[in-house]
Amino acid sequence: MERLLIKGAQLVTMNAQEEILDADIRVQDGRIVEIGPNLLPDPSEKVIDAAGRTIIPGFVQTHIHLCQTLFRGKGDDLELLDWLRKRIWPLEAAHDEESIYYSAMLGLGELIRSGTTTIVDMETVRHTDAAFRAMAESGIRALSGKVMMDEKGEEIPPVLQEDTGQSLQESVDLLEKWNGHDGGRLRYAFCPRFVVSCTEPLLTEVRDLSAKYNVMVHTHASENPGEIEIVQARTGYRNIVYLDRIGLANERLILAHCIWLDDEEKRILRERGVHVSHCPSSNLKLASGIADTPGLLHSHVSVSLGADGAPCNNNLDMFNEMRLAALIQKPAHGPTAMDAKTVFRMATIGGARAVGMAKEIGSLEVGKRADLAILNLNDFHTFPSYDVDPISRIVYSATRADVETTIIDGRIVMENGILRTIDKAVVLKESDRSIKRLLSRTSLA
Amino acid sequence: MERLLIKGAQLVTMNAQEEILDADIRVQDGRIVEIGPNLLPDPSEKVIDAAGRTIIPGFVQTHIHLCQTLFRGKGDDLELLDWLRKRIWPLEAAHDEESIYYSAMLGLGELIRSGTTTIVDMETVRHTDAAFRAMAESGIRALSGKVMMDEKGEEIPPVLQEDTGQSLQESVDLLEKWNGHDGGRLRYAFCPRFVVSCTEPLLTEVRDLSAKYNVMVHTHASENPGEIEIVQARTGYRNIVYLDRIGLANERLILAHCIWLDDEEKRILRERGVHVSHCPSSNLKLASGIADTPGLLHSHVSVSLGADGAPCNNNLDMFNEMRLAALIQKPAHGPTAMDAKTVFRMATIGGARAVGMAKEIGSLEVGKRADLAILNLNDFHTFPSYDVDPISRIVYSATRADVETTIIDGRIVMENGILRTIDKAVVLKESDRSIKRLLSRTSLA
Repeated sequence: MERLLIKGAQLVTMNAQEEILDADIRVQDGRIVEIGPNLLPDPSEKVIDAAGRTIIPGFVQTHIHLCQTLFRGKGDDLELLDWLRKRIWPLEAAHDEESIYYSAMLGLGELIRSGTTTIVDMETVRHTDAAFRAMAESGIRALSGKVMMDEKGEEIPPVLQEDTGQSLQESVDLLEKWNGHDGGRLRYAFCPRFVVSCTEPLLTEVRDLSAKYNVMVHTHASENPGEIEIVQARTGYRNIVYLDRIGLANERLILAHCIWLDDEEKRILRERGVHVSHCPSSNLKLASGIADTPGLLHSHVSVSLGADGAPCNNNLDMFNEMRLAALIQKPAHGPTAMDAKTVFRMATIGGARAVGMAKEIGSLEVGKRADLAILNLNDFHTFPSYDVDPISRIVYSATRADVETTIIDGRIVMENGILRTIDKAVVLKESDRSIKRLLSRTSLA
Repeated sequence: MERLLIKGAQLVTMNAQEEILDADIRVQDGRIVEIGPNLLPDPSEKVIDAAGRTIIPGFVQTHIHLCQTLFRGKGDDLELLDWLRKRIWPLEAAHDEESIYYSAMLGLGELIRSGTTTIVDMETVRHTDAAFRAMAESGIRALSGKVMMDEKGEEIPPVLQEDTGQSLQESVDLLEKWNGHDGGRLRYAFCPRFVVSCTEPLLTEVRDLSAKYNVMVHTHASENPGEIEIVQARTGYRNIVYLDRIGLANERLILAHCIWLDDEEKRILRERGVHVSHCPSSNLKLASGIADTPGLLHSHVSVSLGADGAPCNNNLDMFNEMRLAALIQKPAHGPTAMDAKTVFRMATIGGARAVGMAKEIGSLEVGKRADLAILNLNDFHTFPSYDVDPISRIVYSATRADVETTIIDGRIVMENGILRTIDKAVVLKESDRSIKRLLSRTSLA
């Protein structure tokens, strides 16, 4: 494992005091072992000259669908349920092992290039092994799992329809293979798609398995009024109330979206310690609505950020999500709502809390895993620098291309803009070949 | 002047048929002289190999304040009138010739880097010569002018307060010096700040001068309810109605923002051919509101896009504005509102129409000025490419760093990411020195 000394940068630590430091960082065995001025290099260390650079904790994105990256640009201008039924499900059903692998690699390339070091991912029904292989090779830190969808529906392609027992067994098989892989860098998460797609026996079994194995449950909730109506018609309860009644609402649950909530549901989220993944680009693009993130944060609900999938974003870029999470709230909540620091917190330590890893990642502190991004903010669009809050520069001005180097678990996975773990030329070529093959299997071609 | 042959790219022409072509482009004397497959190079031509690249018309941004670029990061989280009185006016008042020059150069570097080739700019009260010098050197196509603000107000710094006659005379002097400069690349525009800041004698004289010299008038309107109340209290009319009654509402008028309009005002905009500059980032960040751009476009009002100034955005980047102009309308107007092509049209040919130059710029066509950007969309975040609408890739996925080369008036002003007309290292250094000096002159330091 590499031993690194990163010298001369400004550190946006996101430690408890949210300190901004001018200091060096020493990395050994995947962890930050020393932070301080003028650290002396050891001959065994690779020295990274980061003079004039800004180092941040790597971004934690708590809602991603790597299996959909190949569908980027294939789902523009549709509502959620049409988007699912007409585009996403037919394309997910067409996937094969190879296309899942390249869909993941394409997304992982984008994520690492733009400074994201941890993701909470949801795959499709089949071929999830291939996605885990890609995650393992890329060096990303990830929680992921196969999607579970055992509720029958006429519009669901047969290949995506599962038996309850089979869905659970495949999930456990994947968990036993991948949970804890690479020294804990990969973790399994149970991924029931959303209440609409899942039977109650499946959801209650997921509840028990999540407790038994101490792993997260990652699903969608209350993204769309149509979804809520279906849940209410079937169960008699609003979405979050139902999840609570069956015992899924706890600190191991990550819920993407949570746009349409009533007060009781907000109370449940807070009291149970459920984690909300806010996905502003996706929520706007699918015309789902604007989540009340200022209200949720004010009530001390755990809120972090995610880009969702490429076909509803169309990027996987935390810079986009941060800027948007700040801007879209201001017309309704005033210009001081969702300031840069609040948003940056959600993108880093807030995401770490959501995945139960606040002691391991999410800030630059001695003892934590070395997950970080080195930014070069010396450009027209991020200047002046004099007397400007570095977090304002990062949230409101910077973009993906300002990330120079990304380090995960102490390993340099991108250096000076070049991915070390992913061959870009191969992945671009194979992603085009893959989507062409998938389209030929659907009526969308 | 360079003679260019740009070979092998995909062209997003934005001609009347909105054709996408695989073709070469020949440029002579600042104009596109030939578009077609397999054009043969002449020995006098510089050949640009653009294989695998996508060429678009350069972006036209119809509302920019170059004099504010130095204030980036200095006005976060404030409402419009506070933002003006507490930050922007004191800082504008502190400007000197040199700081105006570097503020412009910093903004121009960002604009050209991100593919903007034409701007409609508003300077501050003094030192506008220095901004025009920067624009001339940078190679940008611009309409600009000194701001005019002759209405007295207690909160306005004395150095920004003008006599009516002096404001008009200085404007005309600048017009006579700069209008038509560099073969028409620079043009003058009268820039009354907004009705709140201007007396009626000034506005009616601007109306007559704009007709006499056939130049545009560039101002703000109906950005904020507070502004509208002031105008109504003073004049007895709503903002746009007042502008119409004094004869300013015509096809030479560009109005930034236009968020708070009633039906009569929308009718006036349409019937008089007034041009609206929509600035979504700025409107969100200052909590001003969300303009009804789908409604304006549906009523055949001319709507184009602008980034406004760096302290309320905090970028000058058309990629941000396009993506946001599409996304923010969808929750209220549905997911098909503001599709990628509608937004891209506003960013190119729509902007050209706003400045009265639709026959000269805004599309890739033989006979037009060669204002264009060469994009490299071969990256993780813009892939797959197979069967994806190139305009979706540009609007929803691309960012500033995907612009490789920018050409204005047939001149390469940026090549492979490197500005040819602006020394980045000098401009970054001098912009920090300048803002430090300005802050020391205010109580903000």
